[in-house]
Amino acid sequence: MTRYDTLDTAQLETELEAQLGRYRSFQAQGLALNMARGKPSTAQLDLATPLLTALASPADCIAADGTDCRNYGVLAGIPEARELMAALLDDDPATTIVFGNSSLTAMYDALARCIDFGTGGYEPWCHSGPIKWLCPVPGYDRHFSVTEAFGIEMLPVPLLTEGSSLGPAMDEVERLAAADPAIKGIWCVPKYSNPSGITYTDDVVRRLAAMECAAPDFRIFWDNAYSVHHLSADPTQQDQLLDIGTACREAGNPDRYFKFGSTSKITFPGAGIAGFASSPQNVAETLEQVSSQMIGHDKLTQLRHVRFLRDAEGIAAHMAQHAAILAPKFALVQQKLSQRLDEAGIARWTDPRGGYFVSFDGLEGTAQRTVELAREAGVVLTGAGATWPYGNDPADSNIRIAPSLPPIDELDVALDVLVCCVRIAALEKLLGR
Amino acid sequence: MTRYDTLDTAQLETELEAQLGRYRSFQAQGLALNMARGKPSTAQLDLATPLLTALASPADCIAADGTDCRNYGVLAGIPEARELMAALLDDDPATTIVFGNSSLTAMYDALARCIDFGTGGYEPWCHSGPIKWLCPVPGYDRHFSVTEAFGIEMLPVPLLTEGSSLGPAMDEVERLAAADPAIKGIWCVPKYSNPSGITYTDDVVRRLAAMECAAPDFRIFWDNAYSVHHLSADPTQQDQLLDIGTACREAGNPDRYFKFGSTSKITFPGAGIAGFASSPQNVAETLEQVSSQMIGHDKLTQLRHVRFLRDAEGIAAHMAQHAAILAPKFALVQQKLSQRLDEAGIARWTDPRGGYFVSFDGLEGTAQRTVELAREAGVVLTGAGATWPYGNDPADSNIRIAPSLPPIDELDVALDVLVCCVRIAALEKLLGR
Repeated sequence: MTRYDTLDTAQLETELEAQLGRYRSFQAQGLALNMARGKPSTAQLDLATPLLTALASPADCIAADGTDCRNYGVLAGIPEARELMAALLDDDPATTIVFGNSSLTAMYDALARCIDFGTGGYEPWCHSGPIKWLCPVPGYDRHFSVTEAFGIEMLPVPLLTEGSSLGPAMDEVERLAAADPAIKGIWCVPKYSNPSGITYTDDVVRRLAAMECAAPDFRIFWDNAYSVHHLSADPTQQDQLLDIGTACREAGNPDRYFKFGSTSKITFPGAGIAGFASSPQNVAETLEQVSSQMIGHDKLTQLRHVRFLRDAEGIAAHMAQHAAILAPKFALVQQKLSQRLDEAGIARWTDPRGGYFVSFDGLEGTAQRTVELAREAGVVLTGAGATWPYGNDPADSNIRIAPSLPPIDELDVALDVLVCCVRIAALEKLLGR
Repeated sequence: MTRYDTLDTAQLETELEAQLGRYRSFQAQGLALNMARGKPSTAQLDLATPLLTALASPADCIAADGTDCRNYGVLAGIPEARELMAALLDDDPATTIVFGNSSLTAMYDALARCIDFGTGGYEPWCHSGPIKWLCPVPGYDRHFSVTEAFGIEMLPVPLLTEGSSLGPAMDEVERLAAADPAIKGIWCVPKYSNPSGITYTDDVVRRLAAMECAAPDFRIFWDNAYSVHHLSADPTQQDQLLDIGTACREAGNPDRYFKFGSTSKITFPGAGIAGFASSPQNVAETLEQVSSQMIGHDKLTQLRHVRFLRDAEGIAAHMAQHAAILAPKFALVQQKLSQRLDEAGIARWTDPRGGYFVSFDGLEGTAQRTVELAREAGVVLTGAGATWPYGNDPADSNIRIAPSLPPIDELDVALDVLVCCVRIAALEKLLGR
């Protein structure tokens, strides 16, 4: 194997023919494989089976303070569930609220409240004129869908995945936030980021907390979706994240952050609980605003999670079982990509220690073609461009790889198909087709 | 016992002294009773105990179409849950969506979507200038909290509870809706209404469906919270409600209604599922709008409800058990109020055949005092005024009685206290104090 940029046209043609032959053999297999979304596999879901029967009788449904979780009420969540989510969010139970079955909904709703009612006592954003938002890229497509739905102009900023500072390019973030009061917030997946898998370094967290913002009600939407989702149970192989709440308090901007998280990739996606944590003032304001939307979230689901996961130690022990299933899949991704792509010099990808994704960059102008080729060979990838606001990756190079869902033998084949498609798309590009 | 309006001052004084003596004896008992909120009793909650273990194994979690309800997805709800909620909402599964754990949240969110994004393809209501809303009174306090939160001006219209037409006073509703394009909707609890317990008659439903509305995107928020909540299992003793969807289609206004309902007072309040039904166009628009807020609601809770309640017949059989618990409590309310208040001529109240409430009207200017007296004797009632927008009952006469939660022996005492407080407040009023 040789670097493609050292080949002449005839050699490129020969290589393309070889890859197309390989591609046709994949097509002949009638594959139906999916590497598109960050869904846990069946084996992972089975880890949480005891959750199903965690509450089996009326007596089981009584919370520690005597609350019957089968009836109305308790807007902020039962105390033991607030403790559990505080453990997950690295926060205090007093400033942690339990929300419903989805942190995406909690984020959408938090943004909607800022727009309809305002935050921090400032005017509702719907009265502020057009709003803008900072979007580290590549990022999470569903974040971008939320801001797009509300007509917020999204400003991409690079996410740095190499070097001593990992996270949003802070020089640019600081410059934009200081200059424009219409910029009201930023999307962040600070740990094992979606899709790059990097974790923000302490200096980046501190700069986000301390930076000058032209908007006094600027909010960091801190989606700590993968806070405990390590690929190894060995703490020395796990990323550590500086707490944004601590950083904001130290910087004198205590109300700047909204933290979000959920049990979606811990127990059952869509049938778990979400958590929200922020400053005492933001939490009080949020509860007041939410009181017209909600009497109380599902306390049976809350109590089931408490009984099953117990506490931080229980979560860690449970996540070690997830890691045992996920780590071989992530290792396979690295192995296949390195073996089959390293020498061609046509791609780069991340090698995360947790989370659900690997961020892959092919040659400029090849991502859409790669995804199209894969689809036509029966392998569904996340749509090219999805990791950018408006689905528009200007370089057309980024693809999100999600290895969690398929069984490892299917993942193996899907990666072979991916590699073949990356090569074909690169060869077509180099040949000017 | 005599009608109070036939008594002279001295007789009123004597009667007041007698009632105050009785009141002091209640106070001496150190009561702590609650007739404030429409919460099911523990005995009712116990009826749904099998729901807790309805899904006990991974195999149990697979929906009829093969969907693993433990994983992400299925925005509109699993098909069998849509069928169940369609049965509850008297609608078609194709135009029924399953929402989360609360119909209140579903209503708040639907209103928020109208405000932020618009409905029926019309401009978002946030661009329409100030909005107004029709509020039949007495009504449901949490409805009024939702419209108040969004700064919508609420216009009370009387709810007729006697005569041949039951429901909102349609002459006034029609006059207002036709005249003012700022009026965008109306709150309706059409069956066993909160708090009056009346069910809208067919003529009222048809007039709501057919009336001229100055706002082309006028929406009837049809909160059918008590659709199956009869106090008798005998169909001849149950109210029947004309379907608003059918009426709207027949009137040529097919998109005018949003139907809501939930299992909250069927299984476990706050741990059940909510349903939404509307026209095909509204449902499609709603799903499109909701797709940025939500990946999918809790499908395990959906499937548990399907396995436990099964279908319309299963719901009816289950509700008959609720009726057996609730009917004696509602009968006791009628018995106590009739025995102890009929002759004094100082109050009127409704006698519903379903739902959770009795609407009580004392003399003008006595409701707040009555609630205050009851509270000081250890009986918590719904706050006076709660049944009106902004908590402002201009006649200060209406009190919502919620007999479901207390055990019947406690309810018995609570009603004695209520009657005594009603009498004291009336006597004070008649004596000009």
